Amino acid sequence: MASSRDMETCKSEHMQVDIDQKNSFQDKIVRSQWVLNAPEPPSPLHVVADSVKKTISRVRKRFSSMADQSCTTLLLSVLQGIFPILGWGRSYTVAKFRKDFLAGLTIASLCIPQSIGYATLAHLDPEYGLYTSVVPPLIYAVMGTSREIAIGPVAVVSLLLSSMVQKLVDPTTNPLAYTKLILLATLFAGIFQTAFGFFRLGFLVDFLSHAAIVGFVAGAAIVIGLQQLKGLLGITHFTTKTDIISVMKAVWESFHDPWNPRNFILGCSFLVFILTTRILGKKKKKLFWLASISPLVSIIVSTLVVYLTQADKDGVKIVKHVKGGLNPSSIHQLDFNNPYVGEVAKIGLVVAIVALTESVSVGRSFASIKGYQLEGNREMVSIGLTNIIGSFTSCYVATGSFSRTAVNYAAGCETLVSNIVMAITVLISLQFLTKLLYYTPTAIIASIILSALPGLIDINEAYKIWKVDKLDFLACFGAFFGVLFASVEIGLIVAVTISFAKIVIISIRPGIETLGKLPGTDLFCDVYQYPMAAQIPGVVIIRIKSALLCFANANFVRERIVKWVTQEESKGDMKHSRSTINLIIIDTSNLVNIDTSGIASLEELHKSLSSHGKQLAIANPRWQVIHKLKVSNFITKISDRVFLTVEEAIGYKTEC
Amino acid sequence: MASSRDMETCKSEHMQVDIDQKNSFQDKIVRSQWVLNAPEPPSPLHVVADSVKKTISRVRKRFSSMADQSCTTLLLSVLQGIFPILGWGRSYTVAKFRKDFLAGLTIASLCIPQSIGYATLAHLDPEYGLYTSVVPPLIYAVMGTSREIAIGPVAVVSLLLSSMVQKLVDPTTNPLAYTKLILLATLFAGIFQTAFGFFRLGFLVDFLSHAAIVGFVAGAAIVIGLQQLKGLLGITHFTTKTDIISVMKAVWESFHDPWNPRNFILGCSFLVFILTTRILGKKKKKLFWLASISPLVSIIVSTLVVYLTQADKDGVKIVKHVKGGLNPSSIHQLDFNNPYVGEVAKIGLVVAIVALTESVSVGRSFASIKGYQLEGNREMVSIGLTNIIGSFTSCYVATGSFSRTAVNYAAGCETLVSNIVMAITVLISLQFLTKLLYYTPTAIIASIILSALPGLIDINEAYKIWKVDKLDFLACFGAFFGVLFASVEIGLIVAVTISFAKIVIISIRPGIETLGKLPGTDLFCDVYQYPMAAQIPGVVIIRIKSALLCFANANFVRERIVKWVTQEESKGDMKHSRSTINLIIIDTSNLVNIDTSGIASLEELHKSLSSHGKQLAIANPRWQVIHKLKVSNFITKISDRVFLTVEEAIGYKTEC
Repeated sequence: MASSRDMETCKSEHMQVDIDQKNSFQDKIVRSQWVLNAPEPPSPLHVVADSVKKTISRVRKRFSSMADQSCTTLLLSVLQGIFPILGWGRSYTVAKFRKDFLAGLTIASLCIPQSIGYATLAHLDPEYGLYTSVVPPLIYAVMGTSREIAIGPVAVVSLLLSSMVQKLVDPTTNPLAYTKLILLATLFAGIFQTAFGFFRLGFLVDFLSHAAIVGFVAGAAIVIGLQQLKGLLGITHFTTKTDIISVMKAVWESFHDPWNPRNFILGCSFLVFILTTRILGKKKKKLFWLASISPLVSIIVSTLVVYLTQADKDGVKIVKHVKGGLNPSSIHQLDFNNPYVGEVAKIGLVVAIVALTESVSVGRSFASIKGYQLEGNREMVSIGLTNIIGSFTSCYVATGSFSRTAVNYAAGCETLVSNIVMAITVLISLQFLTKLLYYTPTAIIASIILSALPGLIDINEAYKIWKVDKLDFLACFGAFFGVLFASVEIGLIVAVTISFAKIVIISIRPGIETLGKLPGTDLFCDVYQYPMAAQIPGVVIIRIKSALLCFANANFVRERIVKWVTQEESKGDMKHSRSTINLIIIDTSNLVNIDTSGIASLEELHKSLSSHGKQLAIANPRWQVIHKLKVSNFITKISDRVFLTVEEAIGYKTEC
Repeated sequence: MASSRDMETCKSEHMQVDIDQKNSFQDKIVRSQWVLNAPEPPSPLHVVADSVKKTISRVRKRFSSMADQSCTTLLLSVLQGIFPILGWGRSYTVAKFRKDFLAGLTIASLCIPQSIGYATLAHLDPEYGLYTSVVPPLIYAVMGTSREIAIGPVAVVSLLLSSMVQKLVDPTTNPLAYTKLILLATLFAGIFQTAFGFFRLGFLVDFLSHAAIVGFVAGAAIVIGLQQLKGLLGITHFTTKTDIISVMKAVWESFHDPWNPRNFILGCSFLVFILTTRILGKKKKKLFWLASISPLVSIIVSTLVVYLTQADKDGVKIVKHVKGGLNPSSIHQLDFNNPYVGEVAKIGLVVAIVALTESVSVGRSFASIKGYQLEGNREMVSIGLTNIIGSFTSCYVATGSFSRTAVNYAAGCETLVSNIVMAITVLISLQFLTKLLYYTPTAIIASIILSALPGLIDINEAYKIWKVDKLDFLACFGAFFGVLFASVEIGLIVAVTISFAKIVIISIRPGIETLGKLPGTDLFCDVYQYPMAAQIPGVVIIRIKSALLCFANANFVRERIVKWVTQEESKGDMKHSRSTINLIIIDTSNLVNIDTSGIASLEELHKSLSSHGKQLAIANPRWQVIHKLKVSNFITKISDRVFLTVEEAIGYKTEC
């Protein structure tokens, strides 16, 4: 009984196999029909219209959800949308404030010397740096969505601004006009940043690739360091150029003048002190406070030393007068009838992108550590409005600083309140302490800025980029040397150009690869990537090594395929003494798109293959590709030899 | 007996199934190892070195194969390599010559008026057009590999040359200096063309996409037609600008002058005659001879009419004196100390590419009709040397002409001997018949050129491009209107810019698509392309809609995936009231490459997914991608969740 049931099962299984085989051919036809009768893909016009529609519906939904609420909650939710502080501020606690207060004081102690130094780097009076550390952090604190970013003047932006604006107006002969242009550039940068955010152009920030940023920042750090040689060595006649050759020449020439080593000794000794405390702070977490107060200690001690020894009369360069008081209004200084207004707008655009790149990338990396998402477009609007209002209150371009954000995070900040604490501290200093800054040696400012630079030169990351991607490294290398030997803008241009050239080269790279069947699967893969893949006799399966079959590579690909087939056949000739290949399958699964030149070259390929008695088949075409092949009647030309998989295309050969 | 054998088979099959199931898990591990332990892909440096090595070995092989031959055969094979005529000339027959002779005379009768007209278009004396129809065809005939191309001056190149060179020197006030610059540009174009061929840069010709060429040629045809209004209407004061607005303005202004309608009537009546014979010739193949002799007939009849009626004294414009005789040497006219030599070299480069594009594309299309391959690099060297020698013998840039090649083919040419026949015919005309050309009305020249233009405006092709690819149509449209409303160069620049921008946009397009399983297969496809594809519960399978995960799209893609997963989960929430997705599979089969930004964003994606208790898996990575993921240690971070297929990645979930 048992055996007869076994037999029945067995028979039914045998029958099943027969039916399966009969069905398989029909299934295949059905599946080919799936490929051929796919719904029409949305046209580019459709895609654009759709995205506009979605945006409108999203806005409408938001408004309709608002309409349901009462007037007060409505107002509150709108305000909270604009000022996130109203949201997180309600759950703010004293414990959080204690942390923020300490972090705010820590970054303020770093911020004051850096602001003075960066303003000097931007060829502005020191107070402009301090102004930029007051208003922008306050505005960002109520509008921003990051929790760690420390807003204020930053080195790269200061350098970029000065190197571009000084081509229009000389800061030494005409400082007033120069300052006006800087403020105008700040306004433009703010407007561009707000517009980027408003029109959801967040992707613009991504146009500087990670590799390019690594190279660019390292180059900028060295250039900034070189600029500090002026303060550190106490040089009077310095160059306004930023490339390494001009600066080294200026330094070399300064040695011919009578030179006062006091500046250098003072600066170096405090640089050693700051770096030592930093290393100590890194090794022992408990000593972190030492590293964070060392800049403040350096300033106080050095200022006292100079004041008491009257070293300024012996040639030690000091900061001298810093204009105190609140940020004055600068609306009347924004002159749109300036002859350079077009140039300044361009500068504003470049600065806007670079500043956003720094801020968004630093914000993102800390957000990812703390496990929350930073919304790029929202951030852009916040930074943009910060700069617009900044330009009305004597501030130049502010953005999230690499070094101070890191200190802010390490000092345990909880929210943007640390920025408010910092701004108030700087404000108090501006009001009451500028006279005390009079005797601060410039060498100390230089050494504080220098001490922040090593963190910007990331050799490990550059090595990693080299290991992973040689072309990416080229972009990194180009940006680095462009900044170092030419100028900051040239470095940027080089980096962006290499990055995009790389995209074009990879996309239109005209290579093909032959596929073989992986043993035990229905999968066809590159025979070089998988040496165990076996080629099918009589069939050549080809995949194009790029995502586009377009004007730039179509002819090349066609010629390669014809050459390849001829070669394979001559190999076959040697073995079997007759031609054997009669089916060429193109696996188009990775082909994202095709253009009219691509279709034309496929048609020519089909013609030249069929004139030699060979057939062309297409396997697994994607949506856009099958649609275009259908519309252009290519499918009927190859008598519907389009299959869902390579396997089925091979099956076609055995059936015919 | 039979039944017991059946049972045994059945049992063994059952056992087989068990073993299969046991093996399948091990197989899967083995297959994952295939992915992970693929050999290292060649680095970019390696690829370059390899291609250099291959070229060297090919040259060496050719030389070593030569070394085996005797001295005479060696010499012969070298000569035959340089001059293909020595190869096909040996099997040349009288029957072939009869056909070539007739075709040669046919194209000569078209060539003489066209040469005169195109020289006028290039602001040169008419004889330069005729010179260019003598030496270049002879040289190309012994060096070229196409069988149908008719070499000589062409309309687009004449227009391009004049529009660019007249910016440097005015042809009306300083015709001698202008002619010198044209000859120098010809030499540069020849040198560039030869260099392109020599360094195998054939792909440069492909940088003008098919769509751009269609638009560009149509725009140029209209511009050339507009230029003929000068001859057709007998206008004395015409503009040197080529855009439609300037030309229409010049025509409008000319109506204010006393106007002689005789030119127009004469030109139009012969234009109607030529077009009628052409339509007749197309309808009835037997009447082809009528179409081919109609230009010659027009010239003879109109010249006679003018001569007999002395219509030139009544205001009919005539060609007047054409300098006869052989091509004079022009070596002494090539002045490299010219202040514009850099500009002229640039013009030479642009003209070289445009001329090659016309020649190679016309050669290819006729070669494909006759079923042979045209070798692009070889063709470039031939055309280049033709132009270099041409520049020494008072010729300007020659290339394969669209219209005359078509006539040559239709007239039944067999080999390049038809070019030799044409050249000799033009030479005889130059020697003996230039006096007869004196009374030829310029309106007839204009009408012959006009009659060739409709063939260049391919509305059907433009419609086809619109149907197949909207962005391609944009390039076509841009080129057309650029040429028409701005200038020939601007049209070219617009076309190339749009074409490359399209490549960048498609390559970095930051979209993702969800995949579902096709019923009855192991295949996972886009759920929109295949509506029957079923999604797997608890798993999201995502494919990136571009071939590169790079700096320009990586962040966007990451944000999209996170958003998508959140959305899918909230949908799941509504149905099952709890979160269900715990595996996100990225199918990377279409990802050709990834860069460091792409890897960084994958790492962030992994981090943010695993913080929500979800796992990330990679399926079917390609060679470069898996290599880079391995080198950057990303694979170990996702604990080796890399699979050969999506199916196996899903299997992983059920196993765990």
